[in-house]
Amino acid sequence: MELETRLNESRPASPGTLRPGGRTAKVRRAVLDATLDALAKSGFHALNMDRIAASAGVGKTTVYRRWTSPTGLVGDLLHDMAEQSLPAADTGTLAGDLRANAELVRATLTDPRMGAVFRAVIAAAACDEECARALAGFYRTRLAEWTPAVAKGAARGEVPAGTDPVELLRAVSAPLYYRFAVTHEELTADVAERAATAALAAARDGVFVRE
Amino acid sequence: MELETRLNESRPASPGTLRPGGRTAKVRRAVLDATLDALAKSGFHALNMDRIAASAGVGKTTVYRRWTSPTGLVGDLLHDMAEQSLPAADTGTLAGDLRANAELVRATLTDPRMGAVFRAVIAAAACDEECARALAGFYRTRLAEWTPAVAKGAARGEVPAGTDPVELLRAVSAPLYYRFAVTHEELTADVAERAATAALAAARDGVFVRE
Repeated sequence: MELETRLNESRPASPGTLRPGGRTAKVRRAVLDATLDALAKSGFHALNMDRIAASAGVGKTTVYRRWTSPTGLVGDLLHDMAEQSLPAADTGTLAGDLRANAELVRATLTDPRMGAVFRAVIAAAACDEECARALAGFYRTRLAEWTPAVAKGAARGEVPAGTDPVELLRAVSAPLYYRFAVTHEELTADVAERAATAALAAARDGVFVRE
Repeated sequence: MELETRLNESRPASPGTLRPGGRTAKVRRAVLDATLDALAKSGFHALNMDRIAASAGVGKTTVYRRWTSPTGLVGDLLHDMAEQSLPAADTGTLAGDLRANAELVRATLTDPRMGAVFRAVIAAAACDEECARALAGFYRTRLAEWTPAVAKGAARGEVPAGTDPVELLRAVSAPLYYRFAVTHEELTADVAERAATAALAAARDGVFVRE
């Protein structure tokens, strides 16, 4: 407990990331920011609890007690990232919204810092069940935020009634993540555009209508 | 060189995997089989050159000299796996061929042993450039084998002329690999069927026609 006083209270938080809740919230923020930095810089397999504690200015005991292991840190970071998602687009057409969604995924994965973080958490999920569950939860949250766009599109007659919104949104993300995580091919604007267009064409054809 | 004589010549090769070429080919086969076993069992980060040499019944010096590092082993294994691909389906319709392709991808990824191997090589590619290039090469080879199915489908008028075969085939694989490597969702027969149907619907709509 006394080690928590080592938290450097003067460390500036990233804009918009400081939550109310006093020291516990500040400790969590500092530790998750340090985890994100470490994942971006060196990946999951170099993640070290002692170094995270030192970078965050938080006592080691606190970090071990609250997060237990590197996979605990990654799991909590993913919960935090899911909570901080940007609001979904509302361009007036489903085609526009799906293009915006694909472009957002592309922008995230091609951003040097966030791309490295996603590569690290995908690698963590490949070797650890707890990380895999946290990553699956992150995508459930992210995709759920965009489901109203599909519902509105269906109401406007842009896709058949009964179209499964999550299945359509998965179809938009899949070609981008497939290139990013599996085939290591370039994520051009064209790839994002085509992912959205292909998913919409399949949806119009009724492929994602729930049985 | 003398260490190569430790190769256990009585070790049974998997059916169809023994190539002509004498001792060099046998050493490679034994080492790659041991690498596949180790990846399936413990993943990429536990891959150990000394243990591979011991399992393969090959001298350490040989393994270090010919493969240099664990990433060298993974790279060579991927070259070998690409060469051993099954022939593409020829069901008489592009819809049938794409369903067969999706089902083959699903069967591979849900096979306990091969699924673990793919998880391991995808993780290896996430942390190492040499593995990433080898994995990209593996998929280039695999997808290229199926391009004649798309050309035949286009000739039969099932998709527009000028449809990019590789782009269509990527669209079939993407939803399966996205679930497998990123969101960790179940790969049911239904998911494979829908991946093929969605990709074909987009192709019919001209989404994959080269500009």
